[in-house]
Amino acid sequence: MRCPGRASSGPPRRRVFPAGCPSRTVLDHITGKWGVLILLALSERQQRWSELRRRAEGINEKMLAQTLKTLEHDGLVQQTAQPIIPPRVDYSLTARGHVLSALLVPLVAWALENADEILNGQR
Amino acid sequence: MRCPGRASSGPPRRRVFPAGCPSRTVLDHITGKWGVLILLALSERQQRWSELRRRAEGINEKMLAQTLKTLEHDGLVQQTAQPIIPPRVDYSLTARGHVLSALLVPLVAWALENADEILNGQR
Repeated sequence: MRCPGRASSGPPRRRVFPAGCPSRTVLDHITGKWGVLILLALSERQQRWSELRRRAEGINEKMLAQTLKTLEHDGLVQQTAQPIIPPRVDYSLTARGHVLSALLVPLVAWALENADEILNGQR
Repeated sequence: MRCPGRASSGPPRRRVFPAGCPSRTVLDHITGKWGVLILLALSERQQRWSELRRRAEGINEKMLAQTLKTLEHDGLVQQTAQPIIPPRVDYSLTARGHVLSALLVPLVAWALENADEILNGQR
């Protein structure tokens, strides 16, 4: 299987998206139901578990754990244990996560701007 | 429930994303597993059903129908019946769909650029 990527020629928008390619896996991670919201929340500043749960309203413990695990695994989010009592862990974006979140911010801003008009147009 | 949107103050990235708000519904539609790929494929040019199925490799008939229906319902994609024999229907982006796809193109380009490094780093 030939996967599109850094080395292939032509602008990205002209390529097929073959199933099973790394780019499809990564796209699934970052555009999953909760991935976008967690990355956006962290683009503001590092946050604790409880803050993230509040930001992404409706997420449950299991989905938050799974989303953070995937994003950490992808090198987009990191944990930092704070040397304080009681112990505290903060989640923050890595350098790669910051680059990605800068691309997601305008997308979410568009959704906020257009959501009412889109859903009202359906009534 | 107070939903963030056009009228609310502050930059979008600072807001909570309350469950059940229009922006969450729209975000789910455009960042769903197949929505991104279909919008990207159509950003290039109008295409027929069979072409879309080939571009978004791995999608089945049911998911393609459901994705196109949602995107049409959201006013992002439109059908055009061509006055030819045999009859032929093309799918294309609306003006709103073009604005959105312009935001998705850099996101997908990032995924293509970074996918190998991300997934290799996990081995």
